Amino acid sequence: MASPSPGYSITLRVQAPSSFTATAELAAAVGSTGASITALDVTESHHDSIVVDVSCNTTDAAHGERVREALNALDGVQVKKLSDRTFLMHLGGKLEVVPKVPLRNRDDLSRAYTPGVARVCLAIAENPDDARRLTVKRNTIAVVTDGSAVLGLGNIGPAAALPVMEGKAALFKQFANVDAWPVCLDTQDTEEIISIVKALAPVYGGVNLEDIAAPRCFEIENRLREELDIPVFHDDQHGTAIVTLAALNNALRVVGKQIENVRIVVSGVGAAGSAIIQLLQAQGAKNIVACDRKGAIHSGQTHTDEHRRWIAENTNQDAFAGTLHEALAGADVFIGVSGPNILGEEQVASMADQAIVFAMANPDPEIDPIIAARHAAVVATGRSDFPNQINNVLAFPGFFRGLLDAGASDITPEMLVAAANAIAARVDDDELNASFIIPSVFDPHVAGDVAAAVAAAAGSAQRSAAESAE
Amino acid sequence: MASPSPGYSITLRVQAPSSFTATAELAAAVGSTGASITALDVTESHHDSIVVDVSCNTTDAAHGERVREALNALDGVQVKKLSDRTFLMHLGGKLEVVPKVPLRNRDDLSRAYTPGVARVCLAIAENPDDARRLTVKRNTIAVVTDGSAVLGLGNIGPAAALPVMEGKAALFKQFANVDAWPVCLDTQDTEEIISIVKALAPVYGGVNLEDIAAPRCFEIENRLREELDIPVFHDDQHGTAIVTLAALNNALRVVGKQIENVRIVVSGVGAAGSAIIQLLQAQGAKNIVACDRKGAIHSGQTHTDEHRRWIAENTNQDAFAGTLHEALAGADVFIGVSGPNILGEEQVASMADQAIVFAMANPDPEIDPIIAARHAAVVATGRSDFPNQINNVLAFPGFFRGLLDAGASDITPEMLVAAANAIAARVDDDELNASFIIPSVFDPHVAGDVAAAVAAAAGSAQRSAAESAE
Repeated sequence: MASPSPGYSITLRVQAPSSFTATAELAAAVGSTGASITALDVTESHHDSIVVDVSCNTTDAAHGERVREALNALDGVQVKKLSDRTFLMHLGGKLEVVPKVPLRNRDDLSRAYTPGVARVCLAIAENPDDARRLTVKRNTIAVVTDGSAVLGLGNIGPAAALPVMEGKAALFKQFANVDAWPVCLDTQDTEEIISIVKALAPVYGGVNLEDIAAPRCFEIENRLREELDIPVFHDDQHGTAIVTLAALNNALRVVGKQIENVRIVVSGVGAAGSAIIQLLQAQGAKNIVACDRKGAIHSGQTHTDEHRRWIAENTNQDAFAGTLHEALAGADVFIGVSGPNILGEEQVASMADQAIVFAMANPDPEIDPIIAARHAAVVATGRSDFPNQINNVLAFPGFFRGLLDAGASDITPEMLVAAANAIAARVDDDELNASFIIPSVFDPHVAGDVAAAVAAAAGSAQRSAAESAE
Repeated sequence: MASPSPGYSITLRVQAPSSFTATAELAAAVGSTGASITALDVTESHHDSIVVDVSCNTTDAAHGERVREALNALDGVQVKKLSDRTFLMHLGGKLEVVPKVPLRNRDDLSRAYTPGVARVCLAIAENPDDARRLTVKRNTIAVVTDGSAVLGLGNIGPAAALPVMEGKAALFKQFANVDAWPVCLDTQDTEEIISIVKALAPVYGGVNLEDIAAPRCFEIENRLREELDIPVFHDDQHGTAIVTLAALNNALRVVGKQIENVRIVVSGVGAAGSAIIQLLQAQGAKNIVACDRKGAIHSGQTHTDEHRRWIAENTNQDAFAGTLHEALAGADVFIGVSGPNILGEEQVASMADQAIVFAMANPDPEIDPIIAARHAAVVATGRSDFPNQINNVLAFPGFFRGLLDAGASDITPEMLVAAANAIAARVDDDELNASFIIPSVFDPHVAGDVAAAVAAAAGSAQRSAAESAE
C-alpha cells in the first residue's frame, strides 16, 4: 500500500561494466523493485567500467536493501555504497546560531560585547520591557518537548525527539522568520517541566509545546498560561484546531452548508479532539458528537478525565449513546483525529448527502481517502500524497509571527478563529473545489496573512482590555 | 581619566545653516567637549541649511549630552536626534537561528521533517550516541547564567544579562564556528540551576557557565562535572586561567626567568584567583602567595570557605603572614584579579628586578599600567586601550571547538595547559617583546591552534583511559 516517498530517498554508488545499455539496465533493475528513480548520474567513466550514482525513492529501509540486491544481481554490477539522503541531510544537525551583528574589529567588539554591552544590560535592568526591544526575546520562541509522544513514535525520549524539534524550528524560520530554539527536556515530571520552562522564559517571547503526552500536556499548558507573561501555544491542540477549522470552513463553502446547521462527529477526544471541538463551537457549530473507542461521549456517563467531562457537558445535547459507526448515520461532517482504519465504506455511505470526511490520523488515516471519496463530497487527510492535506505548517509559523509582532502575552480564541479564517481565505472562490479546500503549505502568502490576522486580533483584545480598565 | 570609546559611540543628526565653514564649526564644537569625531556625513543640503550626521566616540551618556549642548549652542544649529550606535546594534537582539538545510519544496520537507525525520529519531532512540552525529548536539553549547554576577554590574538578573550572553554566543560562532545558545535562568537556587542544566543537556555538546556569583558557581560547576557526560567550562575560572598562563609564559620568556623559580603574588582568591593558582602549579610554579583584602592566605589561619582552605594548604609554604603590599617586596610576578587601584607605585618599585605586573581588574586595573611600567619590565591588563590585553576571547572559542571536535566528555588540566601554550606560541620569538606578550584577539589563527591543542590533549586522555582499562 505504501508508495515510494522522498522521506525514504537513497543514493546508491554503483560500479557497472561500460556498455551502451548499462544505465538502462540499472534503471530497469531499480524499477523492478517498485522504487522510483529520481536521478542517475555517471560520476566516473573508465575504459571498461563506469561508476553511477543512482538516486531513488523507496518505501522503507527494507525496500532500499531490495534495490541493492537487485543491482548486485546484475552481471558485473556492484553496489559500492548505499547512502540515505534523509540521514545525510541530518548530519551535524539542521540549525545554526548566527550573529546578526558584525564582529570584524575592535569597535564592533566593544559595542556588541564589553564594554558597550554593559549599558544595554543596565537599560534592561531599569526597564525590563526593553528586553523585547534589545534582545533575542523579540523574535525567539522555545519549542519545548519531553520526548514522550513524538510523532507516531511514542515515548522515545528527549535526545531522539531533537530532530523533530530542529525541523520544527527550521520551519518557523523558513516560513515566518521566527527564531525558534529546541528545548528537549530530560524529565517527564509535570511540575519539573513547568518550573524549568518558567526559569527559561527570560530569553523567549513565546513557548510552543510539542509532542508531550496527554494528560500531562494539558496541565503543563494550563499552568504555564497562568504563570507566564508570554504566550504558550500547544501545537497538537491549537495548531490542529486552526487548520481543521480553516479546512471545514472551505469544505462547507463547497457543499453549501452552514456550520450552525451541520451535524459533526469527532473521533478522538485527546488533545487535538477537544481543541477542535472548542474552536468549532467558537465559530458557531451547535451539533457535535464526540466519540472515543467505546462510542459517543454523553452526559449520562461519569467521566474521570477533565476533557471527557468537558465534552460531555458541552456537546451531544441529545445524549446520543451509540457507537462511532452509529453516530455517523446521517452526519454531515466526520473529523478523525484518532487511529488508522476505524471506518468502513458503509459508514461513509450512511452519512448525509454531500458529506465531508476529514480522516487526519497520521500516518494512516481513519479510512482510505479514495474509498471515502466514493460517497463523501469532500475528503481531506493529513497526508501529502492526497489532495487537501490538513497540515499544521499552515498555522504555527504565521501564528507566532503575529504573536511576536503584537508583543502578545496570551492566546485568545479570537486569535485562533482569525488564523483559521485567514488560511481559508487564501483559497479564492474561483480556486475552491472539492479537491482544493486548503492552500498549499508552500503558498508564500499564508504565513503573512495569518500573522496579520493574529496581530489584529491581539490588538483589538489589548484595546478592549484598556477600555475596560478606564 | 576615561577616554572616548567606541562602546559609547553616538550619532547626532544636526540641522545647520549652509555656509562654507558649517561642518568645520560642528567638528570644532564636538572636539571642544573632548569627544572624538569618527564620521561627518551631510545627508541633506538645501538652499540655506544642511543636515549633517555627526558620529563621535564619547566617554559616557553624560558626555553625549554635553556634545548635544555644545552643538545646540552654535548659532542657528539644532540637534534633531541623538542616537546611540551601541543601542542601535542591539535592536532585535544579536542572534538568529537559521536552518542549515533547504526547505524549498515537498521533498525537502519530507526529509527534514515528517515523515523522513521519524527514521532519524528512531536511529537515535536505538543508539543514543548518534545524537552527536545527527543533531545540533554535535556543534552546540549552552551559555548558562543566572544573572547574579554580570560583568562588573552585579546581580542584575537573567533578562538584563541576556545581551552579554548573546554577545558571547556571537563570539563563539565568529571565532570558532561553535553554535552557542543563551540560557538565562530566572532562578538563583543552586540545586534548581543544577537540575535545570541537567534536564537541558540532551540538546548540547557542552556547557559554558558565565557570570554566576561565587560561591554558588563552584558548587554548580563541580556537581555538573560529576553528573553530566558533556564538558562544563566555567569561563571566569578556566578561561581566565588559560589566558593568564599564556601571557605569563611569554612574559617570563621576555625577562628570561623560569616559572619554577619565580615568586608569584596573586591578589584575589575568588573564582579566577583559585583557578589561576591551580593552573600555574600545573605548569610548574612552586612559590605562590595569594592575598585577599586582609593579606596573605596562610596555613596558620582557619578558613571557612573551601577555596581559601585549598589555597592555604597548597601555596605559601613559608607561611608568610603579611599584607599584600608586604608580600610584593622582592616578588617577581604580580597577578591581580581583585579590585581597582589597590597598588601604589612604591609597591611595584619594591618588587624584584625585571618584575611582571598583570593588573587585570575590570574595568579599572589594580594600578594604572602607565605608572606600573615605570618599574616593572612587563605590564598587562584586561583593557583594550593598553598593550598586552589579557582577554578570555583568546581562549573560550577555540577551547570549545576542540572539545566538540574531540567529542570530549570532561575538561582536564592537561587541556587547559595545552590551550595556554597554544596561545603563547602564537607570538613568535621575533615578535615577542614587553609590549607584545599575547596575540591580538583578532589573530585569525588563535582559535584553530587552541582547538587542535585541546583536541590532541583530549585524544591522549582517551587513549590512556583506554590503556588503563585494558
